[in-house]
Amino acid sequence: MSICAQRIVLLNRPNGAPGEQNFKLEEFLVPIPNKGEVLVETHFLSLDPYMRGRMDDATSYAAPVPIGKTMEGGIVGQVLESRSSKFQVGDFVFGQLGWLSHSCTSAKNLRKIDPSKTPITTALGVLGMPGFTGWYGLTKIARPKKGETLVVAAATGPVGSIVGQIAKSLGLRTIGIAGSPKKCQIAKDTFGFDHCINHNSFLDGKEIHKKLVELCPNGIDIYFENVAGKILDGILPLMNVGGRITICGMVSWYNSGALGANAQGVKDRLPKIWRSILVKRISVQGFIISDHWDSFREFIQDVQPLVIGKKLNYIENVVEGLENAPLELKGLLEGKN
Amino acid sequence: MSICAQRIVLLNRPNGAPGEQNFKLEEFLVPIPNKGEVLVETHFLSLDPYMRGRMDDATSYAAPVPIGKTMEGGIVGQVLESRSSKFQVGDFVFGQLGWLSHSCTSAKNLRKIDPSKTPITTALGVLGMPGFTGWYGLTKIARPKKGETLVVAAATGPVGSIVGQIAKSLGLRTIGIAGSPKKCQIAKDTFGFDHCINHNSFLDGKEIHKKLVELCPNGIDIYFENVAGKILDGILPLMNVGGRITICGMVSWYNSGALGANAQGVKDRLPKIWRSILVKRISVQGFIISDHWDSFREFIQDVQPLVIGKKLNYIENVVEGLENAPLELKGLLEGKN
Repeated sequence: MSICAQRIVLLNRPNGAPGEQNFKLEEFLVPIPNKGEVLVETHFLSLDPYMRGRMDDATSYAAPVPIGKTMEGGIVGQVLESRSSKFQVGDFVFGQLGWLSHSCTSAKNLRKIDPSKTPITTALGVLGMPGFTGWYGLTKIARPKKGETLVVAAATGPVGSIVGQIAKSLGLRTIGIAGSPKKCQIAKDTFGFDHCINHNSFLDGKEIHKKLVELCPNGIDIYFENVAGKILDGILPLMNVGGRITICGMVSWYNSGALGANAQGVKDRLPKIWRSILVKRISVQGFIISDHWDSFREFIQDVQPLVIGKKLNYIENVVEGLENAPLELKGLLEGKN
Repeated sequence: MSICAQRIVLLNRPNGAPGEQNFKLEEFLVPIPNKGEVLVETHFLSLDPYMRGRMDDATSYAAPVPIGKTMEGGIVGQVLESRSSKFQVGDFVFGQLGWLSHSCTSAKNLRKIDPSKTPITTALGVLGMPGFTGWYGLTKIARPKKGETLVVAAATGPVGSIVGQIAKSLGLRTIGIAGSPKKCQIAKDTFGFDHCINHNSFLDGKEIHKKLVELCPNGIDIYFENVAGKILDGILPLMNVGGRITICGMVSWYNSGALGANAQGVKDRLPKIWRSILVKRISVQGFIISDHWDSFREFIQDVQPLVIGKKLNYIENVVEGLENAPLELKGLLEGKN
């Protein structure tokens, strides 16, 4: 076989928004599968925001796409030739094969999909990585409870739309944020959001905040983060005690330079920390001990024997005279105790 | 009875570090307990960093101390008069009674302490709110695992010292940060830290980072946050995947103005967000869906029937031609899809 295949490689790393200048279309001969491999013809390639991150050189949870190599991406395609017992010619498959028209890959990199149940394109969207992301982030990480208020940005996207719909089905109040009046209409009509606001009609986080105060009379319990930027500024003051922020993405910063290797000059440390939390799947939890007095007895049972047995050391700094308290507090805050 | 009692009231709100100019010592007649109340003579008053927050006007988890009112604080004292069946004259008690020498309070605001077991001062330290904070934050929130590396700042303080010792007893590697060579020595000798570094000997977060790279060859799994500032900058790049940051305080920012009501001009959004996470006990969790493929089957079982039954809507944006992918990705990132 010598059909001509196509692939798109990364030509150079973008400075800001990516565009055609960063890519190159190449032609190559369709490869022949080795034993255990399958030749797949791409029918659909998924384009997703995470791809912007792969174009940068910054360390991340996944290696950057090397210059000159095929861009990464999930595809749905059909088996043209199979040297694996797991796949037959004509099978529909999903695989993380990249931006190319034909590809030989080990059978273990492919998942069979059944076109009789749902359209094959859903394997790249609502029943693929984006839908899975929304479902997992909401149901497994955000701990949604009936009656709570959820805000999600990019509300009509493949992640936001599933987050909103599942949250609604669980009895949450759902507020979407999207980038145009048309998208806001779709968010309400198609995805059942209680409200949706167009972030492009607000100048900054303060204005977004003002609008959200109206729409979230009981504050915000869950913010499903995939945009950040001024939207985060608008949301943060409305977060309720015990609220949850699930960081899935921060698309408004991807092109901004705030996250890149050259961001040293940026005074605002938030984007880099936010990105670290995402990339390293860090959990950050604030706590106030006065919420937890019901554990005090357990603490005393646990720790008092250690103190009595001199297994736990402590130092006490005792100063005489109530009148000395102000200066002592000052010293304490300055680490002079 | 007409003994003269003393109290310290908040005279005005500090701008930066608090000092004697913000307080006033007042004398008053020792009050007489009503029915159900107890008169307590203070033996020891605890001074703690959280008090700085109570001096500011900013909304927080607790109301600020009003101007002219007695400063808040925990005390250990002895019952002088009792009109409650729960306490007898001579009993030792703990209560959040404030900066004063004598106080009448309802019996329900007091906890009896037993001086035969441990010294009464421990009720303000290792067996009081600070020790409880360290124990709870570490054992209940930070999810420590044997072999992990923990970093805690203010390592010789009443919170940090218990965090370090309990972590060590659980088999973690413990790195302390403190503010002088002497404190570092104490951290190692008295509290068993594997290492302790003096943050005052480092200019900025980058220098702290460099030192921590040496001391934490396996990265950092738990950062028990009670200082923030440049220490956080030094730690963040070393956090491991799946790491946990337990935010208990941020003392380096308390006097800086970064957190106050007048911080609008501050470009760095991190302090305010960090404070919100603490004050509102928010949990922030980053996640990457590729860690969770083992839940994919559950997702499909859950969501595919909804798609088939048209209970879950989705929109697909299909464009023909691999050659159009670069421009489509650009549009996607700009919200133009």
